[in-house]
Amino acid sequence: MNTAALSDSLRQMINSSNILFLLLGAILVFSMHAGFAFLELGSVRKKSQVNALVKIISDWGVSTIVYFIIGFPIAYGISFFKPASELLGVDQGFNLVHYFFLLTFAACIPAIISGGIAERARFWPQSVAGGILVGLVYPFFESLVWGKNVFLGQAGSWLANLTGAPFHDYAGSVVVHSMGGWLALPAIILLGPRLNRYVKGRSQIIKVSNIPFLALGSWMLCIGWFGFNVMSAGRLENISGLVAINSLMAMVGGIVTALIVSKNDVTFIHNGALAGLIAICAGSDVVHPFGALVIGGVAAFIFVKLFQIETERMKIDDVLGVWPLHGVAGSWGGVACGIFGSKLLGGLGGVSLAAQIIGTLAAIVVAVISGWLVYSVLRLSVGIRLTEHEEMIGADLSIHNIEAYPEEAL
Amino acid sequence: MNTAALSDSLRQMINSSNILFLLLGAILVFSMHAGFAFLELGSVRKKSQVNALVKIISDWGVSTIVYFIIGFPIAYGISFFKPASELLGVDQGFNLVHYFFLLTFAACIPAIISGGIAERARFWPQSVAGGILVGLVYPFFESLVWGKNVFLGQAGSWLANLTGAPFHDYAGSVVVHSMGGWLALPAIILLGPRLNRYVKGRSQIIKVSNIPFLALGSWMLCIGWFGFNVMSAGRLENISGLVAINSLMAMVGGIVTALIVSKNDVTFIHNGALAGLIAICAGSDVVHPFGALVIGGVAAFIFVKLFQIETERMKIDDVLGVWPLHGVAGSWGGVACGIFGSKLLGGLGGVSLAAQIIGTLAAIVVAVISGWLVYSVLRLSVGIRLTEHEEMIGADLSIHNIEAYPEEAL
Amino acid sequence: MNTAALSDSLRQMINSSNILFLLLGAILVFSMHAGFAFLELGSVRKKSQVNALVKIISDWGVSTIVYFIIGFPIAYGISFFKPASELLGVDQGFNLVHYFFLLTFAACIPAIISGGIAERARFWPQSVAGGILVGLVYPFFESLVWGKNVFLGQAGSWLANLTGAPFHDYAGSVVVHSMGGWLALPAIILLGPRLNRYVKGRSQIIKVSNIPFLALGSWMLCIGWFGFNVMSAGRLENISGLVAINSLMAMVGGIVTALIVSKNDVTFIHNGALAGLIAICAGSDVVHPFGALVIGGVAAFIFVKLFQIETERMKIDDVLGVWPLHGVAGSWGGVACGIFGSKLLGGLGGVSLAAQIIGTLAAIVVAVISGWLVYSVLRLSVGIRLTEHEEMIGADLSIHNIEAYPEEAL
Repeated sequence: MNTAALSDSLRQMINSSNILFLLLGAILVFSMHAGFAFLELGSVRKKSQVNALVKIISDWGVSTIVYFIIGFPIAYGISFFKPASELLGVDQGFNLVHYFFLLTFAACIPAIISGGIAERARFWPQSVAGGILVGLVYPFFESLVWGKNVFLGQAGSWLANLTGAPFHDYAGSVVVHSMGGWLALPAIILLGPRLNRYVKGRSQIIKVSNIPFLALGSWMLCIGWFGFNVMSAGRLENISGLVAINSLMAMVGGIVTALIVSKNDVTFIHNGALAGLIAICAGSDVVHPFGALVIGGVAAFIFVKLFQIETERMKIDDVLGVWPLHGVAGSWGGVACGIFGSKLLGGLGGVSLAAQIIGTLAAIVVAVISGWLVYSVLRLSVGIRLTEHEEMIGADLSIHNIEAYPEEAL
Repeated sequence: MNTAALSDSLRQMINSSNILFLLLGAILVFSMHAGFAFLELGSVRKKSQVNALVKIISDWGVSTIVYFIIGFPIAYGISFFKPASELLGVDQGFNLVHYFFLLTFAACIPAIISGGIAERARFWPQSVAGGILVGLVYPFFESLVWGKNVFLGQAGSWLANLTGAPFHDYAGSVVVHSMGGWLALPAIILLGPRLNRYVKGRSQIIKVSNIPFLALGSWMLCIGWFGFNVMSAGRLENISGLVAINSLMAMVGGIVTALIVSKNDVTFIHNGALAGLIAICAGSDVVHPFGALVIGGVAAFIFVKLFQIETERMKIDDVLGVWPLHGVAGSWGGVACGIFGSKLLGGLGGVSLAAQIIGTLAAIVVAVISGWLVYSVLRLSVGIRLTEHEEMIGADLSIHNIEAYPEEAL
Repeated sequence: MNTAALSDSLRQMINSSNILFLLLGAILVFSMHAGFAFLELGSVRKKSQVNALVKIISDWGVSTIVYFIIGFPIAYGISFFKPASELLGVDQGFNLVHYFFLLTFAACIPAIISGGIAERARFWPQSVAGGILVGLVYPFFESLVWGKNVFLGQAGSWLANLTGAPFHDYAGSVVVHSMGGWLALPAIILLGPRLNRYVKGRSQIIKVSNIPFLALGSWMLCIGWFGFNVMSAGRLENISGLVAINSLMAMVGGIVTALIVSKNDVTFIHNGALAGLIAICAGSDVVHPFGALVIGGVAAFIFVKLFQIETERMKIDDVLGVWPLHGVAGSWGGVACGIFGSKLLGGLGGVSLAAQIIGTLAAIVVAVISGWLVYSVLRLSVGIRLTEHEEMIGADLSIHNIEAYPEEAL
């Protein structure tokens, strides 16, 4: 081959590899949604297991459609209302796969909220809420950090203008997880606790149903997470071994810390792994592996302690602890990136603690206000909560007309 | 490097990448077989769960051997009776991986049938049937569409000659799924319904045992399906983002349609996703994402309605609904490719509705005749059905001498 | 582009692809650890299921840390006590991903042992043992075969000097599996059988709890195993289709042999697949696919027969049969590579039966002595076994203060 033919061939190879790269990421993060389903299924009572399954897969369906038509176009200025030949274009449909990869992130929003409001929320209002959040709220903040906001234009870079440095969130500690967790908080509060969760001001712990499925969900999330972080490189040539190892280290920091702090509690250990992974997303490309270990460890510590405070003292019935897990550990990740990313602590540098703090706070503000608005309107209009009778017999029977183990049911 | 060295290096890179590409597809579709196992396990009674597991993994074993020795050589004219050095050849064993990828398709045939004939079929006759179908019947039709039939030669392209256009089936709506579903139909009818499924002409629904495992199976199938469709490109350079997104859209069309049509039925929703994926295989490379959404939606609608007609009115005890799911939704996919692939509907064009209809019908004819023959001969010779006593105590105890939860069993 | 630019671009592409290649291997083998967890969970009694889950994930955590700080540096002479910028280096962090991939192998050691000592071992002593084995013992033998021992230097190649040919273990039949299985043997013997497993010299079989989870574990191991073997190529350019197909064939040889020998026993069939995969690791790059089929078949035969001899006649309570499965089938794999790798049997040649036998025996000696030492010291110092009362109520309640299905428990 001559150099022209070589160039063509190489360019073709690079483009195909990029598509494969993003697609593998999309498949891995798509598999995390099965993880969300089983984590929730195992953490709720038997009478709400079917509901957990249906919510996750249905929310995935709704998210796919609204993010295709509205969300992604808002955040990145790319529309898919074109003939297939144009969608395929000269790059074999790179934008389509890019959409798919980012959809797997966007669809985490209703999946995260789902775990917090489990066992007593009505089905369709939550589907609508998910659609609004994935179609409008999430892409709005996403566009400020990763995209080019089609409405705000340059104004979208206010944060960088303010602090003199861009807000750094490599794989979404803040954009995805913190956003999801802080959106869930008002939803959980507006919905109120499950029946008999708190009786006369006293907490009555409701036991989870199935530890093996809970653990299966956690494993699926952990496995898929390497796609979440590594493929956030966007293109194969930007792949970083550091991102992979930092994800690993933060996960392990979470596991070991939860093991010790919770004194060998299986639920906390399997969620501790997730806390570590949530917190490392933001800085996985800039911190040192030992920094990642600490970030993950602190995240798990926060989760274990704050979950107990939230559900016991604050009396917020956050079934899967999604506010401390995704919300607060995610926020910690945003800030931690500004600390451990510095060269002083072995990081690559180039991050600003001020920018990290402001960006993280901005996400919290956007999330809490939007969450409160969306769920308040739904609550006042159509209602968001099952009736007492429906909740008593369980979401499975009342919404889906079936139990999780129909042959056994009588 | 000079251009000669560059060419060599690039060629090596492209070849290695192709092997990785197909291998990732093979791994993904191999994992779908675990999905088949758990989908069936969850959909049968507790006393038949072990049987579901053993059937799928054993059929995989038998399929691997017969497709290696007979099936693949028939369909593609490549034999593996050569020393390892020749198998490895100059291309690092590309043909071996190509075989592996296509095996994962071929082995779907017994896995599909398994779900239809569950709970009352004898074990070894079904193993033999699987071997015959994967070794002879499937490769015969496969060779007409994708391969070069070693016996028919040019005659294998009769279809293209007839309609003036080739039959288009990118990833096997017809070649794999429709074939499997329509092969299952005579097997299911010849076998007859499970005991007490229909009493005095009245349908008595037999409840499924385990929704979480059913859903797990569906998730595994959905995740692996992206390998089924995307890696059908064959080589990395042919990868298409459109194929990935159309698979996604059809799956979601199936989920959302089943959600609405079945009024929130967990089983239909998780199977609706599969119906969409089955129907999109054929045209995933040529239709528009919105076309894919419709194709998937219609497939799920067909499945939900036809499954009820099949099992309630036609009184065919198709336990997992594999005829409407794989058979009819697969046939719909073959035809739909001819409709939505047209430029008029945003597709890439180059498909012929006539060719699609004829090819789809041809598959049905081949499947029904072959299925009837194979299962009739087995029925009349060795028998294909468990005795009444064996069925009463369950396939697990009577065939495998164990129950699914031995510690609990007494 | 000119040739200089092309060279740069291609080099970059090759490097990025190598990182992706190893990372995909790491993700696949990481997912096998979920497989270990569910295989054990299904094979123990309900009262020990939580313990199985916590052991596997905690051992993963401990392994990650000790192998990062001690094990990998010992075996390969590479330390990670450097700033992130140096870790990332000019190759995007290849060494980090190399570490990750090899960690997934190293962490198999405690995961294998875990299955043998299930239901009656104390938690923390086993965590410590795992740390010692992964940090010191495993890397010592690993370095002799795959690495460059930092202490022994040239002396590490004693084996090649002795037999005139290097010991060949492509993906760890001996280095990983045999090592793990033979390390487990003294641990199991020192620990003693579970209460009431043998009463007055008579064997009383303790039934497993959950076949579906056992099968799920086996499937996860089988799927991930393709990463174990194929990505052992180390770099994408060394990928071999033969390795993939030999893995497949050995697995199928194991499935079909176990199916026949065990007369359709679900547990043996799902473990037979693993026996085949364990035995093929060593020679997967040099034997013929039909050789692989035989290797896998023999491995499953060994497992089925030896497990019965071990647990019934030798009265060793090896709960998951890890000694016959990983230990002996792994050793068989080491030797079989020397037999079936020869050109006479269709293999690629270049292997020495003498070297294979000596290397395999060396691993057994290292494992048995180290295992005996580590567990004896722990037994005499802190104790390795639960009290009788703790074992009676189960490891879940006594160690983790919870049962596997808390809602049901009363």
